[in-house]
Amino acid sequence: MSKKSNYTLFKQRAYIIIYGTSTKAGRLFDLILLALILLSVLLVMMETVADFNAQYHSQLILLEWVITVFFSIEYLMRIISIDKPWKYIFSFYGIIDFLSIFPMYLSLVLVGSNVFTVVRALRLLRLFKILNHPQFNSQSVHLKRAINASRGKIIVFIYFVLIITIIIGSIMYVVEGAASGFTSIPAGIYWTIVTLTTVGYGDISPVTPFGQFIASFVMILGYGIIAVPTGIVTAEIAKSTTKVPKQTKPCTVCGTDDHQDNARFCYKCGTSLLS
Amino acid sequence: MSKKSNYTLFKQRAYIIIYGTSTKAGRLFDLILLALILLSVLLVMMETVADFNAQYHSQLILLEWVITVFFSIEYLMRIISIDKPWKYIFSFYGIIDFLSIFPMYLSLVLVGSNVFTVVRALRLLRLFKILNHPQFNSQSVHLKRAINASRGKIIVFIYFVLIITIIIGSIMYVVEGAASGFTSIPAGIYWTIVTLTTVGYGDISPVTPFGQFIASFVMILGYGIIAVPTGIVTAEIAKSTTKVPKQTKPCTVCGTDDHQDNARFCYKCGTSLLS
Amino acid sequence: MSKKSNYTLFKQRAYIIIYGTSTKAGRLFDLILLALILLSVLLVMMETVADFNAQYHSQLILLEWVITVFFSIEYLMRIISIDKPWKYIFSFYGIIDFLSIFPMYLSLVLVGSNVFTVVRALRLLRLFKILNHPQFNSQSVHLKRAINASRGKIIVFIYFVLIITIIIGSIMYVVEGAASGFTSIPAGIYWTIVTLTTVGYGDISPVTPFGQFIASFVMILGYGIIAVPTGIVTAEIAKSTTKVPKQTKPCTVCGTDDHQDNARFCYKCGTSLLS
Amino acid sequence: MSKKSNYTLFKQRAYIIIYGTSTKAGRLFDLILLALILLSVLLVMMETVADFNAQYHSQLILLEWVITVFFSIEYLMRIISIDKPWKYIFSFYGIIDFLSIFPMYLSLVLVGSNVFTVVRALRLLRLFKILNHPQFNSQSVHLKRAINASRGKIIVFIYFVLIITIIIGSIMYVVEGAASGFTSIPAGIYWTIVTLTTVGYGDISPVTPFGQFIASFVMILGYGIIAVPTGIVTAEIAKSTTKVPKQTKPCTVCGTDDHQDNARFCYKCGTSLLS
Repeated sequence: MSKKSNYTLFKQRAYIIIYGTSTKAGRLFDLILLALILLSVLLVMMETVADFNAQYHSQLILLEWVITVFFSIEYLMRIISIDKPWKYIFSFYGIIDFLSIFPMYLSLVLVGSNVFTVVRALRLLRLFKILNHPQFNSQSVHLKRAINASRGKIIVFIYFVLIITIIIGSIMYVVEGAASGFTSIPAGIYWTIVTLTTVGYGDISPVTPFGQFIASFVMILGYGIIAVPTGIVTAEIAKSTTKVPKQTKPCTVCGTDDHQDNARFCYKCGTSLLS
Repeated sequence: MSKKSNYTLFKQRAYIIIYGTSTKAGRLFDLILLALILLSVLLVMMETVADFNAQYHSQLILLEWVITVFFSIEYLMRIISIDKPWKYIFSFYGIIDFLSIFPMYLSLVLVGSNVFTVVRALRLLRLFKILNHPQFNSQSVHLKRAINASRGKIIVFIYFVLIITIIIGSIMYVVEGAASGFTSIPAGIYWTIVTLTTVGYGDISPVTPFGQFIASFVMILGYGIIAVPTGIVTAEIAKSTTKVPKQTKPCTVCGTDDHQDNARFCYKCGTSLLS
Repeated sequence: MSKKSNYTLFKQRAYIIIYGTSTKAGRLFDLILLALILLSVLLVMMETVADFNAQYHSQLILLEWVITVFFSIEYLMRIISIDKPWKYIFSFYGIIDFLSIFPMYLSLVLVGSNVFTVVRALRLLRLFKILNHPQFNSQSVHLKRAINASRGKIIVFIYFVLIITIIIGSIMYVVEGAASGFTSIPAGIYWTIVTLTTVGYGDISPVTPFGQFIASFVMILGYGIIAVPTGIVTAEIAKSTTKVPKQTKPCTVCGTDDHQDNARFCYKCGTSLLS
Repeated sequence: MSKKSNYTLFKQRAYIIIYGTSTKAGRLFDLILLALILLSVLLVMMETVADFNAQYHSQLILLEWVITVFFSIEYLMRIISIDKPWKYIFSFYGIIDFLSIFPMYLSLVLVGSNVFTVVRALRLLRLFKILNHPQFNSQSVHLKRAINASRGKIIVFIYFVLIITIIIGSIMYVVEGAASGFTSIPAGIYWTIVTLTTVGYGDISPVTPFGQFIASFVMILGYGIIAVPTGIVTAEIAKSTTKVPKQTKPCTVCGTDDHQDNARFCYKCGTSLLS
């Protein structure tokens, strides 16, 4: 065998391990990668905690470099092992993968630029891959289907809410004015969203009696409004939960086909369903 | 053809473009109008942001005038092209259309009166027209039907909540008093609504142990209460969602077409549906 | 006719007007009473608003006396017209009716005791009577039935929530301590209820990282918990909405009885249902 | 009978009373124990209220000792009456039972260690035992079944929410920074959870326009997200509620009794159900 062929073999094997999930090595690679992503995000998180960073700065930096090197090798392997590297490099995940290692190398030249490792948090999106594993699959498929089915209604609903929000925000800006914290219409809109979604920070809140009256109205409106997306999603989930994929065949004698899942005889005419 | 007839033709064409949506020009006019409404609201919004306004004041005013002129032409065209102009002028939209252009002209005489252009936000209501377009229609029809069906129950529910609110608000005013911010019964009612809807600004909150005990009770009551509108809307949406498109053909004799799925005879005239 | 008999007649008529709703006079009396109750509550409310009270004090007091006199007459009439006066006097509504007029008379002797007219807010409960009127009845019956049906599950749920609340409140008291506002276990429980119900005033909020971690856990728990009462009520409303009381009789030929409400012929065998 | 045999009899009787619920004495013991647990938790609670403790300190301590002695006797009885004492001692409840009496004895040696009696709150978990009593059973069984059935979906959902939370928290940390209270990424994550769950304390809230814009987006996202667990639980409760008690009789041949409502033949063995 030529050396070239050896390299091709290596590429193929790398591809199966990195991109595939059907082999044991492929699944192990996925698990290690997910663990390292979590660890890297934890590192970035802890670095932003002033006290912790002050005490363990050198250890954090060391671990950062270890992970950066591993991610760099992974990045190069992804490029090498695939047939059309550019497709990966300019894909969503390809760009994130690059941005999550680049700032560390940049920090060698530009002091402080390693703060951009925060981008690494986006690598967490890879964790959604786990949801395709068998034990979660049936659950997430159900949810996904229900959420997809409700998307149309939800968009119409959000469109409606946004218009309402702008109108109420403008009214509150006029009624309350800058003295109460409603410094501009966008601020009024921000307050309206905070109120309608029942978050209610209290950083801006009406102080004039008339403003409080309108606010009360908005809150009771919010009562009704919050019911709508819940209603949409619930109805879809209920539908997808009760509609189990049919396993039973229709009865060969009377044609009835709404048998229970474990039925062995037709509940209408008594014919065996198993034959 | 006389000149008069030419004018009539112009009126008719204008009517079709402005009020209709069946021609290409009509739909285009709608889209441009909606875009301009959005832009005009954006302008009014940005004008209220002090920093932005200071920097781009002249540009904002210029754009305002451009839009005002366009809206004025649209307003005149709406009056001219319709058969009964007064019906439009004193309709809800007619008044809003007038109020959204008038303040700008007034500002030429009365400095500062252009702040009333805020009324323009109400023109956003025209954006709901989009929901009648085919691709949104089926979704919004579903939602509208469900919301209409729940209206009766929602009104009874809000009536109930308002009474509860006044009673709890009065009790809290007595228990907490002005020192805790419960300066009057209306303030107490405002607090009760803020709490029952789980908004919880925190601008007024109980400080005495007994007040906090009642507040805890109110919050747990709110738990149950928030479930009611959600339940009402969800039940209606679920009903309108599960009403699957009918497979049964309409009756050949009387034309009734809302038969049960397994119907073999028309429930109205008794004709067989299978033949 | 003797004078006694005249009095009996008067008593009977008064009874029909005051307690009944079947005559026109009876319904009118109810409406006037409800309007006066609303007015009286409004008066008490406005009296607590310092600015308003300062300006219109004498008018408010005058109106208060007018209403008090009317309520006193109503109270006496209720006692006179009924057969067993003590039963009314010591009933829930009887006591409230008394307490809503007594403080005004007491204020003649004891200055300032008219603040207790706040009790009048409880008379608002009489407003629920309206819900028995025909146009609301079907709606409120539906709601009442659904809420009654869910009562058992709701009690079990609240029992569960209260225990969780005490445990979490105790833990937060230990973790956060008095410095963060968790001055005692009851304060911790109050905070837990504020958080679990997603009200979130922010008067007490965790400041230590570990406290915030537990708080995050409690909030995500609250996510799941708020779903439970909603689910209970929704399921009951959905059931009571879809299960309309049956008007159709079963088919005399084939016995099928799940006909549509307006069915005139059996959908299975075509027999007339009206004969 | 020997003394040994008497002791065995005593052990058996104690076992039936303490661990069992089938005898009257057993149920009475349970009730008294639950009441004492509630009382003991109340004591610990009141002790943390500074004012109350200052006034009634000696009485509280006395009552504490009474309850501690009772709990100690109960603890010893539980060990004596069971066949495998170690199994109880190292069980979850065994450890809690020990930890709820130990601190009081320790306080004799180590002043102030009785603050750890807070652990006693965990004994409240024994109150869940009541839910197994007949009158609550059917309700809690329903709820438990629905919650168990939704567990899989809820876990997938929380997994999803946590990832979203970390990503949004990181973004907000970068956008707002320490000046607005977003001192670190964990603080940003805490804020995101507070916002997504619509709790909204307001201890941390965005101040920059761009931060407020992202926050608005997060809140509207939260709208949709809160709908999901509600939808999941509602769908399950609706399913378990609509499964109405069966009207069909069990099959006379194989005893199967979960037939469809209109079944005429057993779906398991084909025997006619109508005869």
